[in-house]
Amino acid sequence: MGLFGLGAFGRLIVKHLSPYFDIYAHDPSPEAKRYARRHNVTRVDLPTAAACDIVVLATPIRSLKALAEAIAPHVKPYGLVADVGSVKMKPAKWLVDALPSTVSILCTHPLFGPQSARKGIHDLEIVVCPVRIRHVDTIVKFFANTLDLKVSLATPEQHDKALAAVQGLTHLIAKVLSGLEPLPTVHTTRSYDLMMQGVGLVSGDSDELFLSIERDNPFAAEVRKRFFSEIDALRNRLEAHDSGK
Amino acid sequence: MGLFGLGAFGRLIVKHLSPYFDIYAHDPSPEAKRYARRHNVTRVDLPTAAACDIVVLATPIRSLKALAEAIAPHVKPYGLVADVGSVKMKPAKWLVDALPSTVSILCTHPLFGPQSARKGIHDLEIVVCPVRIRHVDTIVKFFANTLDLKVSLATPEQHDKALAAVQGLTHLIAKVLSGLEPLPTVHTTRSYDLMMQGVGLVSGDSDELFLSIERDNPFAAEVRKRFFSEIDALRNRLEAHDSGK
Repeated sequence: MGLFGLGAFGRLIVKHLSPYFDIYAHDPSPEAKRYARRHNVTRVDLPTAAACDIVVLATPIRSLKALAEAIAPHVKPYGLVADVGSVKMKPAKWLVDALPSTVSILCTHPLFGPQSARKGIHDLEIVVCPVRIRHVDTIVKFFANTLDLKVSLATPEQHDKALAAVQGLTHLIAKVLSGLEPLPTVHTTRSYDLMMQGVGLVSGDSDELFLSIERDNPFAAEVRKRFFSEIDALRNRLEAHDSGK
Repeated sequence: MGLFGLGAFGRLIVKHLSPYFDIYAHDPSPEAKRYARRHNVTRVDLPTAAACDIVVLATPIRSLKALAEAIAPHVKPYGLVADVGSVKMKPAKWLVDALPSTVSILCTHPLFGPQSARKGIHDLEIVVCPVRIRHVDTIVKFFANTLDLKVSLATPEQHDKALAAVQGLTHLIAKVLSGLEPLPTVHTTRSYDLMMQGVGLVSGDSDELFLSIERDNPFAAEVRKRFFSEIDALRNRLEAHDSGK
């Protein structure tokens, strides 16, 4: 397996897939070099990683289009290229446009990250978009039976529609609450505890991921607009109360 | 025990305290009449409920000041009057101002409601403000050992400061999200699930409770101001991005 990107998610891939694959990673950053040395991961150049039977792209979404174009000349004619990012319509299009038509394309979104998978990935969900693929059953079985994941099939559009609200709202609220730190840790309600636990799972995510969810998901702007308009209505209502008392 | 109010929280009190007290309830509403008949609760007039050894006020906060004044002529000289509302500074002052100085006053805030106590009250928290009270140890022991609650002692001011953020933020976010219904139930993340569970625990609360938390807690306006200003900063940042791309 050729793995592009040894960031937070790339490392989660190494952790869970290295029992099943020899992983050849491409990531030129110094942190990746240190990580690979400590975790016995072979670092290779771009053409070598791209020429593996299975290629997994775990780089930030902003670099994905250029990366798809860069690997295109090197991928195996009947290879498989997968991505793991938080939006699916744009990457699916970039991969279809860039890669030779014999190459299989599997777009995935594991609905978890380093925080929520801290205690393992058992029963966590992965959304699988079989964009252009042979043997999808084999792959679904590997995810479901070997990795013990819950597999949902969806089109990239179905995915982006649902996740625009799921991730869009979670990350918006997490950003707002993190701006209010320090927040109380005593005299808390169950409702507040649950909300803060939820926020805690994404509060370590990069600002880049947040912006990508907000910008690269074509349905995110609409969710955001409705969120802010609910906020405005609530604020007006409370201010009317304030001035009316 | 004289119980004022057979609303959602009054009924939770009946459920958990009727094994220990004969409860005489005052609530003139037709729903309370039906509820009392079905649950074997004795309904009495205001003077009778007020003259019990222990009087618990579980009415909306907006009616509490008038109620304190109405029961004052009837309370036992060495009786105990307790409240259970979500703010504490205002009710503490109203009770101290209205009730004879020999009457004990215990302000409490059980940090749970019908939803979060659905599976019992074991280990849930009650904040206790010993405003003017003899035998506070006996009462704390009853809460902790008999009802199995986690008891926190606080001044009304300490309480209102912490809860302005805890409840203020939870209820603000719950209001916003409930305005966005229907929200996705598939392809959800753990973070989103936790947030929605938290919101679900307060989404059945009355609008009156929401407004009371926002208006009657003297620290709520400041929390709200900071919340809205974080929202504005985030919105400006995202809009700058939108127009810059």
